[in-house]
Amino acid sequence: MKSETRCIFCSIIKDELSAVKIFEDHAFVAFMDKYPINKGHTLVLPKNHHESIFTMGDDEVGKLFSTVSFLAKGIVKALDAKGLNIGQNNGRAANQIVPHVHVHIIPRYSYDSSNGRWPSRNLISDEELEKIAEKIRSFLTVEGIRAN
Amino acid sequence: MKSETRCIFCSIIKDELSAVKIFEDHAFVAFMDKYPINKGHTLVLPKNHHESIFTMGDDEVGKLFSTVSFLAKGIVKALDAKGLNIGQNNGRAANQIVPHVHVHIIPRYSYDSSNGRWPSRNLISDEELEKIAEKIRSFLTVEGIRAN
Repeated sequence: MKSETRCIFCSIIKDELSAVKIFEDHAFVAFMDKYPINKGHTLVLPKNHHESIFTMGDDEVGKLFSTVSFLAKGIVKALDAKGLNIGQNNGRAANQIVPHVHVHIIPRYSYDSSNGRWPSRNLISDEELEKIAEKIRSFLTVEGIRAN
Repeated sequence: MKSETRCIFCSIIKDELSAVKIFEDHAFVAFMDKYPINKGHTLVLPKNHHESIFTMGDDEVGKLFSTVSFLAKGIVKALDAKGLNIGQNNGRAANQIVPHVHVHIIPRYSYDSSNGRWPSRNLISDEELEKIAEKIRSFLTVEGIRAN
């Protein structure tokens, strides 16, 4: 595994820093964003350290988003979301904060943009995140939800 | 090919409506957004009609984003972008306008968010789009840019 000492996401991957994880396999990990834009906001990362997708192979990026697709379906069902945004930012000019590739999965609810504005980010306790995560995890195990 | 009569993106795929295309294979097509958020704003679509990723197989979503990765690298090189956002919206609650799955590739430049705001969308003529597209296409043919 290609890791970077001072990368907080690498530290989470190596369990040196805590995060509320909902999924992990040999190549990818998914955990709850501590500052969610919305309930269920999840980050999906390759375990190998890449600052952006520009140093990843296209196949690897594809597999990352195949995992995103699998997780997104579970998240929407678990939380009864009405829509979902997928976002991935590369570079400071694109508002990327942590320089380790990550995909945002942001469930949307019918009421969340009633004023036309994107929901704001607020720090959520690990206890609260854990409750949401547990619900999502239970839907990820439903047979047939993963198409591949 | 699964097509929908009253879908404008299906019409573009079938060449019944015009668009400035930069890429096409058996499964996906990419063309310039007529109302770009930024110079080089590109949409990537599966040719099969799906309203959202929720009816697509995870593998198919993965292949879509593998194509996005390939195109994104060419776009950044062609236009000397400093960053890049990838976005994909599912459902009205997530601000999806055209109900046919599409991925936004939005190149970012060092000056474009100097006031902290996301660049606004403006209609661009096909002639202008064609000039940008031609530059991008030339970079997509560079040997080795496609990793897979």
